[in-house]
Amino acid sequence: MKSGPLLSPTGGLRIGILGGGQLGRMLGLAGIPLGFRFLFLDPAPDACAAVTGDLLEAGFDDREAALELGRQVDVATFDFENVPESSARALSELCPLYPGSNALGASQDRLVEKDLLVSLGARVPLYHEVSSRTDLLDGLERLGYPAVLKTRRFGYDGKGQAVLRDAEDLERAWQKLGDSPLILEAFVPFEAECSLIGVRARDGDTRFWPLTGNVHLDGILALSKPGGFEAGLQAAAERIMTGLMDHLDYTGVLTIEFFLHDGELLFNEFAPRVHNSGHWTIDGAETSQFENHLRAISGLPLGATGLAAPSLMFNWIGQMPPLAGAMEIPGLHWHDYGKQPRPGRKIGHATLTAPSDEALWERAERLARIAGGKFPALLGKLFSEA
Amino acid sequence: MKSGPLLSPTGGLRIGILGGGQLGRMLGLAGIPLGFRFLFLDPAPDACAAVTGDLLEAGFDDREAALELGRQVDVATFDFENVPESSARALSELCPLYPGSNALGASQDRLVEKDLLVSLGARVPLYHEVSSRTDLLDGLERLGYPAVLKTRRFGYDGKGQAVLRDAEDLERAWQKLGDSPLILEAFVPFEAECSLIGVRARDGDTRFWPLTGNVHLDGILALSKPGGFEAGLQAAAERIMTGLMDHLDYTGVLTIEFFLHDGELLFNEFAPRVHNSGHWTIDGAETSQFENHLRAISGLPLGATGLAAPSLMFNWIGQMPPLAGAMEIPGLHWHDYGKQPRPGRKIGHATLTAPSDEALWERAERLARIAGGKFPALLGKLFSEA
Repeated sequence: MKSGPLLSPTGGLRIGILGGGQLGRMLGLAGIPLGFRFLFLDPAPDACAAVTGDLLEAGFDDREAALELGRQVDVATFDFENVPESSARALSELCPLYPGSNALGASQDRLVEKDLLVSLGARVPLYHEVSSRTDLLDGLERLGYPAVLKTRRFGYDGKGQAVLRDAEDLERAWQKLGDSPLILEAFVPFEAECSLIGVRARDGDTRFWPLTGNVHLDGILALSKPGGFEAGLQAAAERIMTGLMDHLDYTGVLTIEFFLHDGELLFNEFAPRVHNSGHWTIDGAETSQFENHLRAISGLPLGATGLAAPSLMFNWIGQMPPLAGAMEIPGLHWHDYGKQPRPGRKIGHATLTAPSDEALWERAERLARIAGGKFPALLGKLFSEA
Repeated sequence: MKSGPLLSPTGGLRIGILGGGQLGRMLGLAGIPLGFRFLFLDPAPDACAAVTGDLLEAGFDDREAALELGRQVDVATFDFENVPESSARALSELCPLYPGSNALGASQDRLVEKDLLVSLGARVPLYHEVSSRTDLLDGLERLGYPAVLKTRRFGYDGKGQAVLRDAEDLERAWQKLGDSPLILEAFVPFEAECSLIGVRARDGDTRFWPLTGNVHLDGILALSKPGGFEAGLQAAAERIMTGLMDHLDYTGVLTIEFFLHDGELLFNEFAPRVHNSGHWTIDGAETSQFENHLRAISGLPLGATGLAAPSLMFNWIGQMPPLAGAMEIPGLHWHDYGKQPRPGRKIGHATLTAPSDEALWERAERLARIAGGKFPALLGKLFSEA
């Protein structure tokens, strides 16, 4: 671990971030124009956020490093919710940490998370705690096939989960996951997946971006398109998020993912942070999720969260499409995270904006053809939901 | 001077920039999402652009440093046109430099610049070369009082110039400036000042942002508002810029400042770079001047240059207004350059965007009240020109 002053010696509020991935990088890019300086704690020497600040290279479970971060900054946050609660708590003794470690704790365990949302009145797909093989069999008895078996902790992007369609799937999944605390969830034959992103200031002021429709590929987000949902769904989603924010006395950006089923929103999970499905806000909203997160945690007034233009985000997973070809498309906003390409790794995204929905679809079809792979088909899926 | 690898070892095109001020910083912020990496050459250890890249701390006249920059990058540019042509030429032997040193040379000498624009058919206020006191008296005979005496080289933001209204002004100005090669220019009682910013790609494709009205305070830009000029003026300005770009075989962003007098554009000066009067493009145009400059010099297709929303820029000179108060205003986009405040120093700007011109003026009046000083009066001046 490095010691001594880590932050560049220019003026402005010093922000510490646990995690130095693309979310940290985009927080840095949003915060530099506000005059803020950034210090990232991340175990990777090539953490891609470090181009926007300084890097404290250490493990997330390194309590001393978390304390060092706390000594160097004015306020801290995280770009990654699997930070050990103990590091977050140690850090929060030295400087304000937003959102608080309570939000981190609640989001890290799928069982605690679902119990909390049920207690707040949200509709949640049936679920069953699984600590033993007997629990799993009881759960399947109750929920029926198909169901989804998930680790309670450390799951993301479809990792740590398995769909169970029959007894054979059950055996395979139990072999793979049986050593961890688990949760069995009813399989929801959803019409669409969507997410609500909102932000709450230190003084309790809240704002919400429009509900965003999401399409996944192999468990990883592929496309996001804000807007187009009925006003009643937006209001219902905001009610649930407001309840959760108030319960946690939350500060910063919060994301809730929902399934849309039979015209109703079912809670899936929440993330106490800026979210991949909100990347379109950089180019398509009046204020981005990144700027508003920084405004919230630094005690500034929040910015407006309206849609500035019809927008659609493509996620680049494993490889970047050719930049020059994509840039021929009007309204194309490119975001390369500067990460080494690896299969299944999120290494960039692009947001298309357009003056109308028709122009947006035309541009999206061009970009899908350039990106190739499953994008043309996935775009069709988003179309059919729109 | 440092040696060895200077650029962070992640992927992407390496861009070298002579100069590491706020223009370099905003180029960096625009280029990081494109996956680009930046190396700045600047004599100041606290060069404010360095937060977006690496810094080669050396003088602009340090030929060895310029060569080192050339060895480290794929393409080079500058954020400052008073770079010695010799450094630029040395650098351009090692890597492509855009715009070329010919543009740098032509822009560095007010006499060469005006002769060139006259030869290209632009209307230019009367001017007279001054190498001696006799020249000055001859010039005043020809142009009459009032007139403006300027150094041919190294002037910016009203520095190196004096308005001559009578013989007493003449004596004072000659004492101060007489040691340098000079130019005497007719004083233009202009109705408005405006600038055209355009960009030319390596393949000759050109785009222009809307003409922008500018208001100065003590020779330093204070306010800029794009749009509102007659189509005929836009076309005339584009014709002049196209001629200049073609003559210089230009690549990158180019700025021309004009006086509007008797309904006609008079050429004032050009800058072979992104320009303060184009900062509104970050938040108010389809593509910013910074991104399009990078697209041009790296051989990518240009982005659209239309106005995305009514916009108005306030320059922060010497001190920043209170951030929290300003941020209460909807459509406020803040840009703090992270520079030490000093009287007369450009340390930040803010751009207001709004859904209509009426809303823009209402927001601008709020911001002018918060900023205080001469801003309310200057805003009135922009109003009366609009």
